[in-house]
Amino acid sequence: MKASVMPHLSSRILSINGSGSDGWGVFYRARAMVAAGEMVTELTIGEHDIRTHPAILDAMHRAAQAGHTGYATIPGITALRDAVAARITRNTGIPTARENVLITPGGQSALFAAHMACCNPGETALYIDPYYATYPGTIRAAGAVPQAIATRAEDSFLPDYDRISDAALAHGAASLLVNTPNNPTGVVYPRSTLEDIAHAALDHDLWVISDEVYETQIWEGAHLSPRALPGMDQCTLVVGSMSKSHAMTGSRIGWIVAPEHVIEKLSDLATNTTYGVPGYIQDAAVFALAQGAALEEEVAAPFRRRRALAMSILEGQNVVGHIPSQGAMYLMLDIRSTGMTGEAFANALLDTHRIAVMPGESFGAAASGHIRLAMTVADDSFAVALQTLCSFAGMLIPSDFAPA
Amino acid sequence: MKASVMPHLSSRILSINGSGSDGWGVFYRARAMVAAGEMVTELTIGEHDIRTHPAILDAMHRAAQAGHTGYATIPGITALRDAVAARITRNTGIPTARENVLITPGGQSALFAAHMACCNPGETALYIDPYYATYPGTIRAAGAVPQAIATRAEDSFLPDYDRISDAALAHGAASLLVNTPNNPTGVVYPRSTLEDIAHAALDHDLWVISDEVYETQIWEGAHLSPRALPGMDQCTLVVGSMSKSHAMTGSRIGWIVAPEHVIEKLSDLATNTTYGVPGYIQDAAVFALAQGAALEEEVAAPFRRRRALAMSILEGQNVVGHIPSQGAMYLMLDIRSTGMTGEAFANALLDTHRIAVMPGESFGAAASGHIRLAMTVADDSFAVALQTLCSFAGMLIPSDFAPA
Repeated sequence: MKASVMPHLSSRILSINGSGSDGWGVFYRARAMVAAGEMVTELTIGEHDIRTHPAILDAMHRAAQAGHTGYATIPGITALRDAVAARITRNTGIPTARENVLITPGGQSALFAAHMACCNPGETALYIDPYYATYPGTIRAAGAVPQAIATRAEDSFLPDYDRISDAALAHGAASLLVNTPNNPTGVVYPRSTLEDIAHAALDHDLWVISDEVYETQIWEGAHLSPRALPGMDQCTLVVGSMSKSHAMTGSRIGWIVAPEHVIEKLSDLATNTTYGVPGYIQDAAVFALAQGAALEEEVAAPFRRRRALAMSILEGQNVVGHIPSQGAMYLMLDIRSTGMTGEAFANALLDTHRIAVMPGESFGAAASGHIRLAMTVADDSFAVALQTLCSFAGMLIPSDFAPA
Repeated sequence: MKASVMPHLSSRILSINGSGSDGWGVFYRARAMVAAGEMVTELTIGEHDIRTHPAILDAMHRAAQAGHTGYATIPGITALRDAVAARITRNTGIPTARENVLITPGGQSALFAAHMACCNPGETALYIDPYYATYPGTIRAAGAVPQAIATRAEDSFLPDYDRISDAALAHGAASLLVNTPNNPTGVVYPRSTLEDIAHAALDHDLWVISDEVYETQIWEGAHLSPRALPGMDQCTLVVGSMSKSHAMTGSRIGWIVAPEHVIEKLSDLATNTTYGVPGYIQDAAVFALAQGAALEEEVAAPFRRRRALAMSILEGQNVVGHIPSQGAMYLMLDIRSTGMTGEAFANALLDTHRIAVMPGESFGAAASGHIRLAMTVADDSFAVALQTLCSFAGMLIPSDFAPA
């Protein structure tokens, strides 16, 4: 036996996280403070301050006790595929059948599988900056090359036809990942933006991967899926999840809705990557969806209330700007009047007031000079934190600043 | 807008299943017969005829009710990582810490992640023929090139140094996937085979991916992990699962044990592919592991009984041969005396006696002329089915056959 050199890990897995800071420094500092016994108001991550409804957990337990503890069929159980298909048909008007639905262990798993289906290794996958934190890593994990399309705060961070088309041409892209209602911006894409996306996708033969996990959290306007636009049902993969709509984040239950031939191939992938989703969790999801809009509205209600609170607080000052707050459990604030980066501001706010927010830069260069608040603490605490934040920003404004 | 050509799916996802028959024809025919109301004795897939123990389900429900329904930490909850590490340390003698353990949504997910970590796209991943049905597809899903190492029935389907070394040299392989106790053969690799594997791996800088999901089902001899051999802890990724050991197939809960730097990178991958495992399922796994060997023996007992039944039946005839039955819930029978392929025999057996078994060819060319029985029906039915199978084989023997 020769003196051995240990084998090397794949370049792919070594580079998933990319280079440089991952933008979670403030988050981890806040967690360390909490662990050390300090009181911190955490407005960082998108997790409800309620737990999964006990009735959903009871339904899960009943299914497990009744014996649904063996392997579940790979595309998902029929009852759940049918429930998801019926819901999508009802919400979008696009006829959707069981055969268009793959059940996945959560939305993140669906995002990964969708990119595995749409992109060959080395092909470019487009996404919109600012973006949810895992997007570039998900694309890299699938062996594709992430390419951000920058947007501007002045445009409410909305992409347009030219930006998408130019990026698709420049990189010979295979796919475009979009997200409405948007995390981190809280913007709900208007029809005109979705038409731009559809035109660019059809012009450049792009798959559209549409992350719609916040579809039940709409404060202004209406959710529109790109799959519902003319010609788009054949080239769109919709990613959905029970995490945000039903406070089932930990249950890891989601889906992909796509053309039947895509679902067939995604089932092959699932056989070799996940081997399906626990049957009793799928049964619980069927139960939860059967509760209809009432339960979804109950889960969304705290964010709706806090968003209204936030609007009244923000209207009473002229230091902190905000991106139109139309949906999702987040608020994107513009603190450029302080002359600080989002990261510097977030660190200062944590040090001075023990309030933790995410720097805009955590979600891409486009959101520099912004911070994202998750509206995930009790109303009183949330209001106090936002008022404190605004006062703090006011004290940081350079003396030569003139509010617009 | 131009007339659009629909975008294409990735070559990768189109080719996951490879070409040709997938070998599941008998299985699907049997399922169709059952659906049509016929009585079929199904000895096809590796799923217990018991359900998950109610005490485990109760522990799961308690955890969910207590609020463990939010995102769980990505490498896995500390209590479960510690429990797995302690169990591996105890069973193998190799010091194993929490930092060596990643919790995954099942063993299949662990197999995929391990190949993602070890192989760059286009690199060769070796595996032993005969093999568990998903192995080549899992390797293809990870973008690597599957290369089987053929073994012979006469060697109990055990690989040796030369076969592995030759394959590693010929293909510049990055990894070697091994499985003991073995599905489909029921063989438990002896120390000499594992030493061959270790020598070949160290000589050729191979990662060893060791699928040990049947480690609690041992009828003869003892389970030995390649990770326990000198120098191997630095280049072995062990795949484990609660599916077979605790009848938790549907709960999708497993793990990878590997060097700490590998687990760190696998955590990056998990963040972007699964986003973790339900916390209440992890709590249930902690509870199940805390029951110790007694529960594991209770779950294995039916297979131990049926294997003993099978040995007494097989000793009473000289038509059907068998591969040494040492572990796992399977029995690999040699029906070459009939002059038939495994597939032809399995189809004839299904048609004539409504007994469904898997053709050996479903698990690779090396197992041609064999059939695999899963010992997953009640003892009486199992014994009757095996006796019927032996009589049926006897009637099929060509008149010029002389038993050895």
